Amino acid sequence: MDEIARRRQMLFSGTGFSAALFHSGGLPGGASAPFSYFSGCSVDGSYLVLNRRGGMLLTHEMNFVEAKEKCRYPVRVFGSKPAKDLKGACGRGKIAFCPSEMSAARYFALRKKAKLRLVDAGDKIEAVRGRKSEGEVEKLAAAARIARKILARLVPWKFGTEERLAAHLKMEALRQGCEIAFEPIVAAGRNSAHPHHRSGSARLGNFVLVDFGVKKDGYCSDFTRCYFRGEGMARERETYGKCRKIHRDIVKALPKCKTGKDVALLGAKLIKEAGLPPLIHSIGHGIGMEVHEFPHLGAKSRDSLGGGTLAIEPAAYFKKFGVRYEGMVAHVKGKWREI
Amino acid sequence: MDEIARRRQMLFSGTGFSAALFHSGGLPGGASAPFSYFSGCSVDGSYLVLNRRGGMLLTHEMNFVEAKEKCRYPVRVFGSKPAKDLKGACGRGKIAFCPSEMSAARYFALRKKAKLRLVDAGDKIEAVRGRKSEGEVEKLAAAARIARKILARLVPWKFGTEERLAAHLKMEALRQGCEIAFEPIVAAGRNSAHPHHRSGSARLGNFVLVDFGVKKDGYCSDFTRCYFRGEGMARERETYGKCRKIHRDIVKALPKCKTGKDVALLGAKLIKEAGLPPLIHSIGHGIGMEVHEFPHLGAKSRDSLGGGTLAIEPAAYFKKFGVRYEGMVAHVKGKWREI
Repeated sequence: MDEIARRRQMLFSGTGFSAALFHSGGLPGGASAPFSYFSGCSVDGSYLVLNRRGGMLLTHEMNFVEAKEKCRYPVRVFGSKPAKDLKGACGRGKIAFCPSEMSAARYFALRKKAKLRLVDAGDKIEAVRGRKSEGEVEKLAAAARIARKILARLVPWKFGTEERLAAHLKMEALRQGCEIAFEPIVAAGRNSAHPHHRSGSARLGNFVLVDFGVKKDGYCSDFTRCYFRGEGMARERETYGKCRKIHRDIVKALPKCKTGKDVALLGAKLIKEAGLPPLIHSIGHGIGMEVHEFPHLGAKSRDSLGGGTLAIEPAAYFKKFGVRYEGMVAHVKGKWREI
Repeated sequence: MDEIARRRQMLFSGTGFSAALFHSGGLPGGASAPFSYFSGCSVDGSYLVLNRRGGMLLTHEMNFVEAKEKCRYPVRVFGSKPAKDLKGACGRGKIAFCPSEMSAARYFALRKKAKLRLVDAGDKIEAVRGRKSEGEVEKLAAAARIARKILARLVPWKFGTEERLAAHLKMEALRQGCEIAFEPIVAAGRNSAHPHHRSGSARLGNFVLVDFGVKKDGYCSDFTRCYFRGEGMARERETYGKCRKIHRDIVKALPKCKTGKDVALLGAKLIKEAGLPPLIHSIGHGIGMEVHEFPHLGAKSRDSLGGGTLAIEPAAYFKKFGVRYEGMVAHVKGKWREI
């Protein structure tokens, strides 16, 4: 069975859905992650309808040739009544969909116009996507390698300001044949105190935090490094060292963790033991076609870690600065390995 | 009254909503267009609650300082019960929201957990955003100028393949201090027959279609040009010339158009008169903080054109090639002008 058929099988296994429906989104050059995952392509403006035996892609005339070339399911063009075509393809049973990937507007229209019996299958869809195949881990590792390399050879001070350093990182991603996985965070000096600081015109001093990742073949990477110049900044350096150590210790202890909650509690414990303030964001997140995906690493999360890929990001924020160390780890054949 | 207050006033004028609710989205470095438009900032992971008298931004602790710096409304940090905080801020009345900008998952959660009386105000919100202020048109014109300049001096043949030309366009956008407004479409030779062709490894021959725009200060541009090298391609050149002329003729006739429908019908008429096949996508679209926004230019659209900014893109697609010419036009002080 090929990968795409295996994904479909996992989706329906143990469920009562008769079909599943995904939409790729409206803009060219990209598609929602669940659509790409289950269709194996990223044609815009298209619906993917799956059932236990197979599936079908419904699209606009203008995407037909592209869809036929790239999608492994049969492709049909919408006629003058798209709602009727959709209803015909989906049938009368319960239709699984992913509410986090569909706008409320589309949901309303599908219910009202196509009269589809849509059922929230977000948890199931995200859990299936969270368990990575070896092929997916290879792609994630490739994206990780490129981001790590760019960060390892980075001399941030050459670029003068946060904005210019951020632009450089984006160009580096392009030069490596990638997109950025998210808008890079470049936080100079005091700005590092804000985890999601938006890069601006601030001049780089002797300390800068960079949070950066690329998207390669549809898969994301996500790393954070802090850069120091010259002497001093003893407290920043020491705290950064602690975060690196906590990262290492979490990775070592992952074999004992079963759920997202286990990692969150482990992270909180290690941060406390290191004498650092409690974290104001989660200790990390699943990563794949999206930067943030299953498993969720929160104090209440029951998400299973098995087969997952994680970004782990211990950090400490104070009034005048913040530091963070972030790296990726994948669970392959029952073992965790850094990628 | 400042611009942000004026926008709020337009939103509530003639409606029965007691409040309006927007969410910025979850990733750093960007926010949904309605959130940015009404808040004047783009802090991630935040809610904006507006009423007739003012508004408030609710955010996570980790975004507080950034939000306080950039948002003109008071900022509050979510406590341990965010749903309760939201309910308190929104009140019991009808709460306007924009379903095209909110995921179905968030909509479900707001209804169930915060018990908000959400009312679909998408049409109103989009219509308000569609009428541009002079300041907005200036920003759109700046984004347009940069994209036009990049396309005007482009020598596509230097880059060998579609992908590499697309990467060059993205880097040019970055060098000009912009983002891309959308993934550039670079279609060599036969690939131009597909309006939303995804740039790939195809080598550039003697004909290439480029659809490209930048985002500057939050506002988008969108242009399409066709490039020819050497002799021949008489039919491609001639058809492209016709599209340019149709574009010019539509812009000239815009003062007679009142709605999106009027433009769609005008476009269809001119395309028919030029002996070209009926268009398989719309003749254009509103453009602003999003590449595609109000007014919709379709055969059934009653969207008013007044104060709008449009991208007009007459095109013709055949089996072996396609051509398209796209440019932008803004309605300022009752007059249309190309930007």
